[in-house]
Amino acid sequence: MFHMAIAYNPADPFTAPAPRTIPMPKTAIAALHEAYASGLTPEDMVDRILDRIAALDDPGIFLHVAGRDDLLDQFAAIGARDLTLKPLWGVPFAVKDNIDVAGMPTTAACPDYLYHPAEDATVVARLKAAGAIVVGKTNLDQFATGLVGVRSPYPIPRNAVDPALVPGGSSSGSAVAVAQGIVTFSLGTDTAGSGRVPAALNDLVGLKPSLGSLSATGVVPACRTLDTVSIFAHTVEDAYAAFAVAAAHDPADAYSRHRPAGPLAAWPARLAVGVPRADQRRFFGDAVQADSYTATLADIAARGAEIVEIDFEPFYETAALLYEGAWVAERYAAIRTIMETRPEILHPTTRLIIGGAAKLSAADAFAGLYRLEALKRQVEPVLAALDCLCVPTIPCFVSLDEIAADPVTPNSRLGTYTNFVNLLDLCGIAVPVARRRDGRPGNVTLLAAAGRDGFLAGLARAIARDPRHPDAAAPVTLAVAGAHMRGMPLNGQLEALGARFLAEATTAPDYRLYALAGQDVPKPGLLRVGPGAGAAIALELWQLTPAAFGAFVAALPAPMAIGTLRLADGRAVKGFLVEAEATRGTDDITEFGGWRAFVDRLAPTDR
Amino acid sequence: MFHMAIAYNPADPFTAPAPRTIPMPKTAIAALHEAYASGLTPEDMVDRILDRIAALDDPGIFLHVAGRDDLLDQFAAIGARDLTLKPLWGVPFAVKDNIDVAGMPTTAACPDYLYHPAEDATVVARLKAAGAIVVGKTNLDQFATGLVGVRSPYPIPRNAVDPALVPGGSSSGSAVAVAQGIVTFSLGTDTAGSGRVPAALNDLVGLKPSLGSLSATGVVPACRTLDTVSIFAHTVEDAYAAFAVAAAHDPADAYSRHRPAGPLAAWPARLAVGVPRADQRRFFGDAVQADSYTATLADIAARGAEIVEIDFEPFYETAALLYEGAWVAERYAAIRTIMETRPEILHPTTRLIIGGAAKLSAADAFAGLYRLEALKRQVEPVLAALDCLCVPTIPCFVSLDEIAADPVTPNSRLGTYTNFVNLLDLCGIAVPVARRRDGRPGNVTLLAAAGRDGFLAGLARAIARDPRHPDAAAPVTLAVAGAHMRGMPLNGQLEALGARFLAEATTAPDYRLYALAGQDVPKPGLLRVGPGAGAAIALELWQLTPAAFGAFVAALPAPMAIGTLRLADGRAVKGFLVEAEATRGTDDITEFGGWRAFVDRLAPTDR
Repeated sequence: MFHMAIAYNPADPFTAPAPRTIPMPKTAIAALHEAYASGLTPEDMVDRILDRIAALDDPGIFLHVAGRDDLLDQFAAIGARDLTLKPLWGVPFAVKDNIDVAGMPTTAACPDYLYHPAEDATVVARLKAAGAIVVGKTNLDQFATGLVGVRSPYPIPRNAVDPALVPGGSSSGSAVAVAQGIVTFSLGTDTAGSGRVPAALNDLVGLKPSLGSLSATGVVPACRTLDTVSIFAHTVEDAYAAFAVAAAHDPADAYSRHRPAGPLAAWPARLAVGVPRADQRRFFGDAVQADSYTATLADIAARGAEIVEIDFEPFYETAALLYEGAWVAERYAAIRTIMETRPEILHPTTRLIIGGAAKLSAADAFAGLYRLEALKRQVEPVLAALDCLCVPTIPCFVSLDEIAADPVTPNSRLGTYTNFVNLLDLCGIAVPVARRRDGRPGNVTLLAAAGRDGFLAGLARAIARDPRHPDAAAPVTLAVAGAHMRGMPLNGQLEALGARFLAEATTAPDYRLYALAGQDVPKPGLLRVGPGAGAAIALELWQLTPAAFGAFVAALPAPMAIGTLRLADGRAVKGFLVEAEATRGTDDITEFGGWRAFVDRLAPTDR
Repeated sequence: MFHMAIAYNPADPFTAPAPRTIPMPKTAIAALHEAYASGLTPEDMVDRILDRIAALDDPGIFLHVAGRDDLLDQFAAIGARDLTLKPLWGVPFAVKDNIDVAGMPTTAACPDYLYHPAEDATVVARLKAAGAIVVGKTNLDQFATGLVGVRSPYPIPRNAVDPALVPGGSSSGSAVAVAQGIVTFSLGTDTAGSGRVPAALNDLVGLKPSLGSLSATGVVPACRTLDTVSIFAHTVEDAYAAFAVAAAHDPADAYSRHRPAGPLAAWPARLAVGVPRADQRRFFGDAVQADSYTATLADIAARGAEIVEIDFEPFYETAALLYEGAWVAERYAAIRTIMETRPEILHPTTRLIIGGAAKLSAADAFAGLYRLEALKRQVEPVLAALDCLCVPTIPCFVSLDEIAADPVTPNSRLGTYTNFVNLLDLCGIAVPVARRRDGRPGNVTLLAAAGRDGFLAGLARAIARDPRHPDAAAPVTLAVAGAHMRGMPLNGQLEALGARFLAEATTAPDYRLYALAGQDVPKPGLLRVGPGAGAAIALELWQLTPAAFGAFVAALPAPMAIGTLRLADGRAVKGFLVEAEATRGTDDITEFGGWRAFVDRLAPTDR
């Protein structure tokens, strides 16, 4: 059986990494190199990537997926495995669909904008030259305008932490592709926070390089003066390894700068970390996020850093300039022909946001530049006295329901701690930190002056919650197959424990289902019978905190048990099993494919 | 009699500096310090400044002149003469009227814009603190928009080299005030070339500092991202001394930078000087200017420098961006309220130029910024391979008649070699070089990367034609009082020698005029009789090259002589005198005040 070495899902024991007792946890890239060294073939790898995509069945992640032949051709093209010449040999990655890959269409999530680039974007070419394999082009908020990931005419990628949440954007598909273990890393872009917000929402590292360090050649511009390609990965080391390969000055890009990736720095002896003054922090009612942030700062202080509260008003004011000021005109300039001749081809929200620029004059643009310059002068002495800033990556989580009700306000909120960063020419790295008390991933972003990417990544590596280590606070996914499902008699037990419904699912075809006898409420029993010897049984996936899960398991009556179920998509989750003994003499209802179908058949109007 | 130590007029023997045989020619500031040390009092100095202004009788230079009491108060305020604490003690300077001086109104040459600043602009305050004395506020192209100096509702300052020429702008009054010896140095501003073009047109040094080295606090903006205060003086040393005092980082100015004035550099052992490729040079038909430029490059090469021809197209394209691109919107932004509520208060040409911005969108502005960024990348490697550039300051001279006929085209031409400079963040210094063969001042500008002001000034000092040295090519001003005047029988002799009419004038009241007898054509004789013992006699001033002048004098018949005449405004010029012997028995026609009046009285319709 294949263990996805490229994915880290702490909730999945089949792919979970080695526990802390193993002294040198591997990065995803190192683990993959080891797998190749141990005999993993390109064919195996290609199959596994495509199987994983098929199993996830999320049409929102990719707008284009490389075919099997294309992937094999790419492996053939990178030649023999030589990690000195090709440090990313055989490492699969995904590319946001506003970045060109030769042989794949570019749409920027606007179907009518589609074109067929003749050449790879420079960053893609560099990664390919280092041996990396392009798996496909990922969905995004159209023209990279949005932080929610839902401003796309294509299906919306499912958030990898909780499908009720927005995936985050604009680099939605690239974040989810990594979070779901399809690829080892991915390329996003980041103007307002598109490389950081989806990282927070999908429990990833989001590396937002210094402006100009990654070439923009072959990248569809959003705001040319503020754009950068960004990188998603599960670990800081993986993200930085891809960054180091991709970074190079590009004479063809007027905004390229000589900013080679330095080495990952160690935690320094003295470290002054600027944070928003406590009374100025914005969480929009998410008290859990506020507490999580406070806890992260305590963790950083415990490592010997000095936490320095600073006046954050100039940063908020800078952030407001991005969409309220003149820079939206850069987005307009980028798609001017569309805006002026075919605005109807745009996503309505995208059109609304970018259309705001039509009323802005050149004098307004300069007024914005002047205001920014004044704000830069205001924050420069503040930043000069600090080694870095540490802010929440997002002030709160945003659900699909919230963004459906109001397509703009929750999006704006997500940019609270990201919008000012490129305007002030800072580099940043969003990292997952200790889980919040509700089980959602904690998140902060470290920020420093442009050029300090290596310094910042070194700090980020130290404070990141490492997916290679067991996480006592990781939420548990529980598969229920009977009376705990929605609308069933025992569903209230899950609700009472604060469990969240995630999704419907089915088991691998290794299970049989029985209608148990002698129960208080009618319930089935799920029994594993061996590979292919059973059927795919319908389930519901619910998420609980470890504490709630423990309480739930503790209260279960015999003959019910909680074991590990294999799902049809290959994932392993905790779930209900029944003692085989209890199935004796009961009805095998496997043919119904699930408890709900069986119940409906018996009494369709009576459950 | 007072010799204006602060003025260098090579045509004026009364103020001409010491010849080359004196080993250490003094800078104007040093000469003034010496005069104070030798007993020149503040009262003397104030009188001489005000007398000089009165004698020039040019109402276009100043929009406001400090009163005698104000000037004496300024002297009182600077305290005892201490050149260590106050290196500019008692040095008079003029301030362009878009720079605030407390106690004097600021108009930017727009009367309805007038305000009374409560404080000095930071640069003015720094110069005052170093002991300098503000003489007044000078005329300019309204809102510093123009390179000709005629876009002002006030009288136009007379060009100090040739009154038929435009004075140059936008810092017209500041240039003329120095050129005419009223002040030792002056402040201009320079966005498109306003600190360089008038220097070339008035035979001065024009120091255009690196952007951000001089504070913009208290300066009316033109293009905030491209503006700098600039300095006019007769010598590089004087200009640089004022610059060194004025330069300082200003936290109140968002565009201020830490760029202290370094020392004046020596001529280096190796020097690569970039120049426009020969086939790309633009002189708009002024072949004399083309030859002058070639000669200057030969001079520079003779000093051991390597002249490197470069492709100048990207520089011309950058220059075109300034008015054809988005930056005119900065001018609009600077006076937006006026443009949108009271455009009628503007000079028509100013309104026309700045009004062009109204149709520019914010997207256009960013498109301009993108194009500039691409051009910057294009020229960066070119500039990196060179130590400096050397370009003509102006491609051709422009007359008042030309600009009256077409208020825009000649203005644009003057920016050929200046418009790109601030866009590319270069520092520059315009210097007078060897006179052109027609006697007009030669001019080039040296350019280098921002921050290299001291390096550039060092080079400029070496190549500048030094007004402290005799200049064999200096044109000669000749006063004619009789048959050589316009419309008179012998005027054709002047025309044949290529002489140019400069102006009408009158003598000091020390001369008597006689109608000579026995001449081929009727002519008068001018005889000096002693201070106040005669009358002011009408003259015409003509300018000739030294060769033409020599030929003219050589051909004069007795009893005519060429001597030195004192004019009513205090200037001394070469001019016709008559042998006293020849006046015996002739009619004293002094009472007519001039030959033309006498002739007209005799035969008003017959000359």
